[in-house]
Amino acid sequence: MTEHTRVDGRSPNDMREVTIERGWSTQAEGSALISFGNTRVLCTASFTPGVPRWLMGKGTGWVTAEYSMLPRSTNERMQRESVRGKIGGRTHEISRLIGRSLRAIIDTKALGENTIVIDCDVIQADGGTRTASITGAYVALADAIEWAREQGHIAKKSKPLTDSVAAVSVGIVDGVPMSDLAYTEDSNAETDMNVVVTGSGDFVEVQGTAEGTPFNRTELDALLDLALASAQELAEKQAAVLAR
Amino acid sequence: MTEHTRVDGRSPNDMREVTIERGWSTQAEGSALISFGNTRVLCTASFTPGVPRWLMGKGTGWVTAEYSMLPRSTNERMQRESVRGKIGGRTHEISRLIGRSLRAIIDTKALGENTIVIDCDVIQADGGTRTASITGAYVALADAIEWAREQGHIAKKSKPLTDSVAAVSVGIVDGVPMSDLAYTEDSNAETDMNVVVTGSGDFVEVQGTAEGTPFNRTELDALLDLALASAQELAEKQAAVLAR
Amino acid sequence: MTEHTRVDGRSPNDMREVTIERGWSTQAEGSALISFGNTRVLCTASFTPGVPRWLMGKGTGWVTAEYSMLPRSTNERMQRESVRGKIGGRTHEISRLIGRSLRAIIDTKALGENTIVIDCDVIQADGGTRTASITGAYVALADAIEWAREQGHIAKKSKPLTDSVAAVSVGIVDGVPMSDLAYTEDSNAETDMNVVVTGSGDFVEVQGTAEGTPFNRTELDALLDLALASAQELAEKQAAVLAR
Amino acid sequence: MTEHTRVDGRSPNDMREVTIERGWSTQAEGSALISFGNTRVLCTASFTPGVPRWLMGKGTGWVTAEYSMLPRSTNERMQRESVRGKIGGRTHEISRLIGRSLRAIIDTKALGENTIVIDCDVIQADGGTRTASITGAYVALADAIEWAREQGHIAKKSKPLTDSVAAVSVGIVDGVPMSDLAYTEDSNAETDMNVVVTGSGDFVEVQGTAEGTPFNRTELDALLDLALASAQELAEKQAAVLAR
Amino acid sequence: MTEHTRVDGRSPNDMREVTIERGWSTQAEGSALISFGNTRVLCTASFTPGVPRWLMGKGTGWVTAEYSMLPRSTNERMQRESVRGKIGGRTHEISRLIGRSLRAIIDTKALGENTIVIDCDVIQADGGTRTASITGAYVALADAIEWAREQGHIAKKSKPLTDSVAAVSVGIVDGVPMSDLAYTEDSNAETDMNVVVTGSGDFVEVQGTAEGTPFNRTELDALLDLALASAQELAEKQAAVLAR
Amino acid sequence: MTEHTRVDGRSPNDMREVTIERGWSTQAEGSALISFGNTRVLCTASFTPGVPRWLMGKGTGWVTAEYSMLPRSTNERMQRESVRGKIGGRTHEISRLIGRSLRAIIDTKALGENTIVIDCDVIQADGGTRTASITGAYVALADAIEWAREQGHIAKKSKPLTDSVAAVSVGIVDGVPMSDLAYTEDSNAETDMNVVVTGSGDFVEVQGTAEGTPFNRTELDALLDLALASAQELAEKQAAVLAR
Repeated sequence: MTEHTRVDGRSPNDMREVTIERGWSTQAEGSALISFGNTRVLCTASFTPGVPRWLMGKGTGWVTAEYSMLPRSTNERMQRESVRGKIGGRTHEISRLIGRSLRAIIDTKALGENTIVIDCDVIQADGGTRTASITGAYVALADAIEWAREQGHIAKKSKPLTDSVAAVSVGIVDGVPMSDLAYTEDSNAETDMNVVVTGSGDFVEVQGTAEGTPFNRTELDALLDLALASAQELAEKQAAVLAR
Repeated sequence: MTEHTRVDGRSPNDMREVTIERGWSTQAEGSALISFGNTRVLCTASFTPGVPRWLMGKGTGWVTAEYSMLPRSTNERMQRESVRGKIGGRTHEISRLIGRSLRAIIDTKALGENTIVIDCDVIQADGGTRTASITGAYVALADAIEWAREQGHIAKKSKPLTDSVAAVSVGIVDGVPMSDLAYTEDSNAETDMNVVVTGSGDFVEVQGTAEGTPFNRTELDALLDLALASAQELAEKQAAVLAR
Repeated sequence: MTEHTRVDGRSPNDMREVTIERGWSTQAEGSALISFGNTRVLCTASFTPGVPRWLMGKGTGWVTAEYSMLPRSTNERMQRESVRGKIGGRTHEISRLIGRSLRAIIDTKALGENTIVIDCDVIQADGGTRTASITGAYVALADAIEWAREQGHIAKKSKPLTDSVAAVSVGIVDGVPMSDLAYTEDSNAETDMNVVVTGSGDFVEVQGTAEGTPFNRTELDALLDLALASAQELAEKQAAVLAR
Repeated sequence: MTEHTRVDGRSPNDMREVTIERGWSTQAEGSALISFGNTRVLCTASFTPGVPRWLMGKGTGWVTAEYSMLPRSTNERMQRESVRGKIGGRTHEISRLIGRSLRAIIDTKALGENTIVIDCDVIQADGGTRTASITGAYVALADAIEWAREQGHIAKKSKPLTDSVAAVSVGIVDGVPMSDLAYTEDSNAETDMNVVVTGSGDFVEVQGTAEGTPFNRTELDALLDLALASAQELAEKQAAVLAR
Repeated sequence: MTEHTRVDGRSPNDMREVTIERGWSTQAEGSALISFGNTRVLCTASFTPGVPRWLMGKGTGWVTAEYSMLPRSTNERMQRESVRGKIGGRTHEISRLIGRSLRAIIDTKALGENTIVIDCDVIQADGGTRTASITGAYVALADAIEWAREQGHIAKKSKPLTDSVAAVSVGIVDGVPMSDLAYTEDSNAETDMNVVVTGSGDFVEVQGTAEGTPFNRTELDALLDLALASAQELAEKQAAVLAR
Repeated sequence: MTEHTRVDGRSPNDMREVTIERGWSTQAEGSALISFGNTRVLCTASFTPGVPRWLMGKGTGWVTAEYSMLPRSTNERMQRESVRGKIGGRTHEISRLIGRSLRAIIDTKALGENTIVIDCDVIQADGGTRTASITGAYVALADAIEWAREQGHIAKKSKPLTDSVAAVSVGIVDGVPMSDLAYTEDSNAETDMNVVVTGSGDFVEVQGTAEGTPFNRTELDALLDLALASAQELAEKQAAVLAR
């Protein structure tokens, strides 16, 4: 597997260069500009005391997410969803995925009746925008929670974060399992899988799709191994950035 | 695992009773009313010669799907999406999943420049509506293709169907992996996984979500085993129905 | 008039075969799957204690209806209104007609501050979908009221239903007044009239439209006679079904 | 019947004062500002050579109508439908009624492949806005056809108009059949009926609705008599205005 | 400058004939049908006690405006914004401009917690529809305030109106600064400027746009001079109409 | 005037620090990340051969713009316009202003039948987002044109740009005319004016609004002087950046 070389010179197991600029926005309670190679996503976390009406009085908080792509984040300009007047299926699907991924590592009781909205705006897209979004969103979320603790919105001893979370796309290209697919690889993948993993190495989401021919159990296992290894790298990077 | 008994008396490995009424609609080119226990979905396949503009002249066909729930398919009446004026994220997501699942076993070249639209309308919902939809949609699709062959829209020797496809939801409830979750089980599942499998036993889609605590590799493996076994049963049922 | 034979062998005064399957849905408080020949409509009645905001505190209930066609209920697939993002004029018009027809036989004071929503989803369309909807909706409504009485939401001695209601389409085809037009007859009708009649034989709605040449008073009178006779048959069928 | 006096002093058989200002708009090919008492509607007819795509090459023309109310045409300001982002059921219903009524007296072959759009904008509403709209729309339509003939869009010898058309609302108020109901009468009517009649006295549309108790055949007959008489008066007024 | 003659015979400094029919609508609390030549706008003012939620309890009132064009107010019929399902940018922009212009001469404290909505519906458009709207809206607003004072909604000694307001469009056509551009002039203008001016001669809005070549400071000064002079004429006309 | 000191230490005539990062996006044909102090806007220019249908065959090109704010560009998170399902009035207004401003310095004949879409996405907002957008958009536009010339889409000798364009907001705060208002100043301004100026010092747009009391001619003149001076600085900065 490792003899195969990729378009950008990586070996199949390698992720692209990952950078996380914490606090990139001066206004949000938490923010991170994350890059997976040429893919670049601005993640902001907005903290508000209080919860939506349907949660009031239950003593639990709420974390949700919205994903969007700038019109010229892609190679050809896309129409804005605000102009089309509705949000497409893919946008909905990814927003929901990001929200679920973050809620998996949040103790909503410990968060108290507070709401955090994560916005993931893709500034440049070269494959893996949803996995970069989840990975960056965690950093923004962690900072917003820290901010809320400092402001007294969350009790000092409360620990709303039960773990960290990161995500990676893996896939089979030309018969070879590969990590962190760039756009051209993704377009040619026979199987494409997005895996969301906690810092402790457990799964939050596993979404594998056969783009061409269906995949067998052996291939699935190889992809899961690869995803766990890459997710481990991301978890270390997140920890390092948040330790500063 | 097998000592555990479920609300409706099933053992964890058992699916609910599955029935497929082929040709339920007199107007569609293919149709099936499928039941997974109390879950009931009407699947129709509409065949039209020609393809959408973006596919014209490429010699390939198109298969797509739309999923919807009748307002009173659920325990409490839901607002119609036509009345709200927009389709929700979940509906989009499931429609896209059904379409991808069917396209995985279609040879679009063999289909020729023809379009098949599958409609999956949930008449009664008790968990597993998306997996019942995919399983029933395959039967409707197969009949629409047969109809088109008889009408001469598809050449006699063309084989647009490369395999069959079925889907099942599996999950971990009270620590036990179970097949074909009913609504109350689904609501209490720690992990919920929808698996789409071909008749030959390969994966088309694997979508696992931690609803509560993240799941580990061992649990994932147990769920995949269970899904493959149940999908095998469904494939046999589909074959039997289509053989009549 | 009676010498004229119709496409399906009926005489002009005959309705198509009418069947009413009461309680077809296991979830709704009342339901009926009604057929007028090949036209098939699922009618469900959803009961909720309480009324919309604008009626609160007035001591009266509310009954409303929504009509919709499944995309492949027709010979050629129609686009879903949820996908188009708006409800068409015809759908609005029929929903409003069904609601008005039911409210004509409801004593909203006796209903108390409770709401019943009737959904009429056309599963197969072969002419007369609105008249079948009204006729089936009455059965679903009656059962929902009975359910509410048993549950104690409505007092035992209250009689929210003041009468029964049914509807039939009549029209002039090739110069001959005919009852219960099938789709091909409806398309060729010079005049098309939908008549909603109570069990006691009074009119709730009379909607006659000249599709081709305008119609005169004599023709109108003949159509009204025919409608009253057919409505009488429907009222008897409803009573028989509800008596079981 | 004639002893009964109405709020504004009319006898039951009388219409309110009807005025038709022909050519009120300087830009439309045909226009009329029509008043039925305090109800005032601006009707314009816009002529365009050519037909919608679905009619091309069939040698027939198209006439359609749109109805709308100015936000402050009513006693309390209504929200604009453009602001709400969708057209309500009532607006759709009336627009369709006006279009059907006009098409009933149009020979679309004689019109040739031309389109006429009628706009009926209610400037002041005091009951009967739909019947005033139809009555005024006919005048605007006739002028637009005359304009098109003069411009050579329609051959001199073609006669697209096969008759005239007018409409009146009749109803039973306090047990008395009355013609041309004003708003307060309409609100109290037990039965409300809109009747569209050709200049020759045939029916184009009959739409009767029981607002309170259902109505019997005798009442229906009385209302139809009244409607035919009032429609005759309107036809004479239209002819007089167009003769100038 | 004054030697130049315009299409309609006016000299560059002249406005078209301006007429204001006060109280044109019998239902609104204030209304005016204003004409600037062939441009005709119906302005109504709707008074309601109370304010929108976000203003409650602050002791201040609210004035807002909505602008719209009838579909056949223009030379070619435009699609209704209610049919398109959304309001266009130009409509939004003008509605906001009218609202701001009126609020500039309103003391919202003196208005008390009351809301006035101004509707400006263009019945015929020949250039200057927004300036005619503002000028007519002031008259409708003044009458609605007077009505509210008489009804006791506003205290007798309160003076919500701090000044009057009117607007005029000026522009450079063929190098010559001109007042109150008609549609054909507006289409050929190199520079187009809408100026909103109080009765005391101060500016509320200055919106100048280079349609062709950018304009210099000298041209800007000439246009401002012209606008102030025309606005003075309009203020006098408003005062005269309101004095009756 | 110069003795007055502002919140951030500037004198009234000073703009905030302006930086322009040219080519910030790797995908767009032209791009600039522009800052006016804490206001930060990403401007991208997307070049496409061909023009919208309504311009085809006329030999002229098309330049248009879309403005949008990221949900957390502001101090409190705003709802996305794509989620609300429609674009607000302010967004429309600013998009149109940017488009007009750019078209004022474009020779569309020289551009040929090509389209350039400018996207201005506000990443951080602290007042002056529309003026920063226009100023940055010019740089992105210039680069896209240069790119198109190099690619051969535009002839080498064609000069689509006839000048440069920049914009600045000026206003009267506490009676003092000031340049480039920051958000808190803008909120307190009595008068707010956005001025779009070419590199040669002519006006493209002048939009002055009295937020509180109307303004007189002397104040207007002072604001125009200030705007011309600041625009001159911006033009020099643009030229310097493009000269690299």
